[in-house]
Amino acid sequence: MSRFFSERLGRLVPYTPGEQPRDARYVKLNTNESPFPPSPKAVEEAKKEARNLRLYSDPTCKRLIDEATKVFPVKENEIVFGNGSDELLFFAFSAFCGEKRPAVFPDITYGFYPVFAEMAGVPYREIPLRDDFSLSLSDYAGGEKVFFLANPNAPTGMAIPKKEIESFLAENPGVLVVLDEAYVDFGAESCLELIEKFDNLLVIQTFSKSRSMAGARLGFAAGNASLIADMNTVRYSFNPYNINRMTMAAGIGALRDEDTRRANCSIIAENRETTAKELGNLGFSLTDSLSNFLFASHPRLDGEKYYLALKEKGILVRHFSKKRIGDRVRITVGTADQMRALLKATEEILKETAQRKESQK
Amino acid sequence: MSRFFSERLGRLVPYTPGEQPRDARYVKLNTNESPFPPSPKAVEEAKKEARNLRLYSDPTCKRLIDEATKVFPVKENEIVFGNGSDELLFFAFSAFCGEKRPAVFPDITYGFYPVFAEMAGVPYREIPLRDDFSLSLSDYAGGEKVFFLANPNAPTGMAIPKKEIESFLAENPGVLVVLDEAYVDFGAESCLELIEKFDNLLVIQTFSKSRSMAGARLGFAAGNASLIADMNTVRYSFNPYNINRMTMAAGIGALRDEDTRRANCSIIAENRETTAKELGNLGFSLTDSLSNFLFASHPRLDGEKYYLALKEKGILVRHFSKKRIGDRVRITVGTADQMRALLKATEEILKETAQRKESQK
Repeated sequence: MSRFFSERLGRLVPYTPGEQPRDARYVKLNTNESPFPPSPKAVEEAKKEARNLRLYSDPTCKRLIDEATKVFPVKENEIVFGNGSDELLFFAFSAFCGEKRPAVFPDITYGFYPVFAEMAGVPYREIPLRDDFSLSLSDYAGGEKVFFLANPNAPTGMAIPKKEIESFLAENPGVLVVLDEAYVDFGAESCLELIEKFDNLLVIQTFSKSRSMAGARLGFAAGNASLIADMNTVRYSFNPYNINRMTMAAGIGALRDEDTRRANCSIIAENRETTAKELGNLGFSLTDSLSNFLFASHPRLDGEKYYLALKEKGILVRHFSKKRIGDRVRITVGTADQMRALLKATEEILKETAQRKESQK
Repeated sequence: MSRFFSERLGRLVPYTPGEQPRDARYVKLNTNESPFPPSPKAVEEAKKEARNLRLYSDPTCKRLIDEATKVFPVKENEIVFGNGSDELLFFAFSAFCGEKRPAVFPDITYGFYPVFAEMAGVPYREIPLRDDFSLSLSDYAGGEKVFFLANPNAPTGMAIPKKEIESFLAENPGVLVVLDEAYVDFGAESCLELIEKFDNLLVIQTFSKSRSMAGARLGFAAGNASLIADMNTVRYSFNPYNINRMTMAAGIGALRDEDTRRANCSIIAENRETTAKELGNLGFSLTDSLSNFLFASHPRLDGEKYYLALKEKGILVRHFSKKRIGDRVRITVGTADQMRALLKATEEILKETAQRKESQK
């Protein structure tokens, strides 16, 4: 730390991103990326745009927004794009939270929420999930607050039905719900169309997962026009050219190819269900995931040991050293081949563990 | 404004970016972009990387940083990249300013500084430039503060010699100088090599101008290892994947082609000098610009009127409705052809203005 670092930010504990090995040695199931390439249209548009880099990108994102209004149930003044949904989440913490309106979110959710709150300098409170990792909306009812709700939640993958969220929005007008739908395309219900009905809903989505564009950094927030105007006030006060030309073009290409996205999402959902069943057969306990990852524990296998044993066998998954979930690992759902490799390695690890325990008797 | 917008940020007055017309009708001399395309190597690398978008980018930017250490006098732990230098400037405001260490900068400088200070919620003070727009470093001496110094300054283009900055750093150890060298490659002296000697210097540069990559969003900050560690704490608390894969690749390509950058910069410096002389012959008063823009006023032509008249003739320049500089326009230096078009239009405008005044007598 330098002698100039601010006292407040000096206390920051940054988010730890999942490992990004620079070689391709690993079956990479640790950061919820898509195993499939992005739409060829996205790649094509991005390549074409590379020659235009000398000029700033359009800060209004007009062409991208026009395309988005064809795909999502939003009008052009109800959507704002950002350099990944992370940036938009930070903007939401900055724009809407404060002393009178603290941020609230579960104790087990996207690990960036408390970091964003610290960085934005706003108060926040973590509310424990139930013992089975379920989230009860009643725990968040009443008062003035900003409720960051990942749906499906990470790393549990568990989702809340749209109907329940709709009732919550209607019954709690003082609560702004920032609904982080990063993983919604793999089987949960999106609440995007509710933005027309409720002024206390901001929906955030990303192109990183279902559109295979994690390396492009593109996300959006949708909400009623005045919420979006506030988000834009922050965006224009921070980095109005935040979306580079190539990513903007890739986004336009991706939105013109919803077929590829849908096809990829169904394969992943199918692989998720098959893998969940097989892991269940091996004695794993799993949450009901509707996302592109599984969250698994095994009665005879410690989470960290399982993660390390898989890594030794060339498979990367994610382990969180955090109370309540340290016994688990989060496994990104990949291709059928990748899932077979995971299951094979897991069977070996279980066998080795059993043998070790046997020999220790 | 929504009913949820934070009281503090509700007072934000966002930065107004220069017009980005979506058609190519204009000779575009309003946002200090390069008239030349980026290095073919940058374009080639970016295109190649488009196919890898499904994976997150490397948050450590290792390959880009390795390349940068070959070009700039920095070690790998003395540099951090960001999504444009704007992002890094915001990080610097957040990381280093506070109640005990306010931000200070001139009244006339990059218009984003006060916006960043407001957004980061840190105190700031504007210190007027002298009447001739010169900046006297003695106005910033003493005490504990963070001094944001654009060198060359914008929109004046005027630069302070390295030797003076070096003395200031030595004499004012309590002042952290954030030296914004966005325009340094067009003729001013960079202080990059001083980071080895002073722990109170953070140098920020961008690939937007001299490397023709405004649309890619890439900038870097260089300073001693502990300052850079602080910047990374903020970066990892905000958006660790903030640089997308294509831009990272383009940056690597650009750094492998310093010849193109140098060649483009000399042409622009030459066009600047020629155009300045010609504008001088037409009666304009100009600051001594060492950047890729000119800052001009004319005794018989109001700044806003000149801007509007040029726009009518298909030439976009920048006018700031701000006291002390409302009589001026900022003209980006483009190709020789673009400069000829500017001069021709300007002569016409002066003639038309003279005729109008004549007929009003």
